[in-house]
Amino acid sequence: MTTTAKTTGTIYLVGGGPGDPELITVKAQRLLQTADLVVSDRLIPQQVLDLVNSELRIARKTAGKSDSAQDELLEWCLEGLKKGQQVVRLKIGDPLLFGRGGEEVLWFRDHGFEPVLVPGISSAFSAPMVANIPVTHRGTADQVIITTGRGTKGSMPDLPEYHPMRTLVVLMAVGRATDLQQILLSNKGYPANTPISWIENANCPEERTIFSTVEQMANVVDEQNIVAPAVLVVGHSITVLNTL
Amino acid sequence: MTTTAKTTGTIYLVGGGPGDPELITVKAQRLLQTADLVVSDRLIPQQVLDLVNSELRIARKTAGKSDSAQDELLEWCLEGLKKGQQVVRLKIGDPLLFGRGGEEVLWFRDHGFEPVLVPGISSAFSAPMVANIPVTHRGTADQVIITTGRGTKGSMPDLPEYHPMRTLVVLMAVGRATDLQQILLSNKGYPANTPISWIENANCPEERTIFSTVEQMANVVDEQNIVAPAVLVVGHSITVLNTL
Repeated sequence: MTTTAKTTGTIYLVGGGPGDPELITVKAQRLLQTADLVVSDRLIPQQVLDLVNSELRIARKTAGKSDSAQDELLEWCLEGLKKGQQVVRLKIGDPLLFGRGGEEVLWFRDHGFEPVLVPGISSAFSAPMVANIPVTHRGTADQVIITTGRGTKGSMPDLPEYHPMRTLVVLMAVGRATDLQQILLSNKGYPANTPISWIENANCPEERTIFSTVEQMANVVDEQNIVAPAVLVVGHSITVLNTL
Repeated sequence: MTTTAKTTGTIYLVGGGPGDPELITVKAQRLLQTADLVVSDRLIPQQVLDLVNSELRIARKTAGKSDSAQDELLEWCLEGLKKGQQVVRLKIGDPLLFGRGGEEVLWFRDHGFEPVLVPGISSAFSAPMVANIPVTHRGTADQVIITTGRGTKGSMPDLPEYHPMRTLVVLMAVGRATDLQQILLSNKGYPANTPISWIENANCPEERTIFSTVEQMANVVDEQNIVAPAVLVVGHSITVLNTL
């Protein structure tokens, strides 16, 4: 048996959770404290970045110029890997649930590295919890569907027809509230009085919850000035623990 | 202003994650180390229970006699609360995603206590990650539905029709594999060659991943002797990072 020096680095795609620094996993915390390099984007709140005990580089990734920032970010990771570093690519929520983590795995494979994946709490579940919404509940909801208001090239995902036992959770829905309301009411058979909830800045200091109905879901975005990031929940499990 | 002694306890419903003790949240870890009493059931693996630094009581909750064990478990919590204790009710995965956490919230409310909810990583997402399956992926899957093979009184949840862009994740499906295969093929329009994956004991030392198709999903349970707990994933995002 021969021993070879470790000359290549390791890339970790790590879920940073929904925003509260106590809601990252113990594994993510350990990696943020022991990695050589942590590469993040501007979606990660400062209180989570404060956990990093190593070199931290933050890409300029913002709405509208996300592709070039994404390239920059991946190149930074690769630089570290080629130096033999332990590199954490920190992502909001969970890497594989609307995190484009699959694309990053493919990119790193193309460059000779197999990422280690570390799950994170997604706001798809922590946001409903903030609003006391059990996304499933015996006799009320036996299935939950998660989707996004921002599909490929601006399209909206093709959702299934209304079912009273199904909870719908939509990420990144604020900017598409009017379209989504129209689709649910006119194309998907949602009753106008189906309960909805907007949860804004879930798991962050300024979190806010608003309850309404499908018929009013776009209206309340305007009236209450709901801004991204916000999670939309639609379904009858909303009223299990809440009196509207 | 008067100061009153703290005479009532606090109940925390805490997600214990999928099995790996490093995949609990930092908040859950802190509560397991600082609570006066931790009440668990037999679904929580020993390596997670090893994190507990306080009195630990484990209910006999197993298949077939879960209701009486559930009563026992909640009564233990209540005893602690009445003594003014900080009590953690530790649950596998996430408390509100097929965890019956909503029912426990209602029970504690009936007894005068409002639970604090702490999310956890659900195997609904960590298990697909073990199998390198991005449950969403641009151009392949823009929505994911999570359900269970064990509905109320043995019924199966009424799933939507097949859609090529939707990933299906089924918890507790091993015992219902034959029924579920039949439903997907005959009632829901799933093509026979749609990729599936069984992930057994995800995030535990003995984890195992098997890939197949909807047409073979019940067969492989028998042939490979797949046992609960196992998560079933159905959809085209399975082949994004895996060559079958």
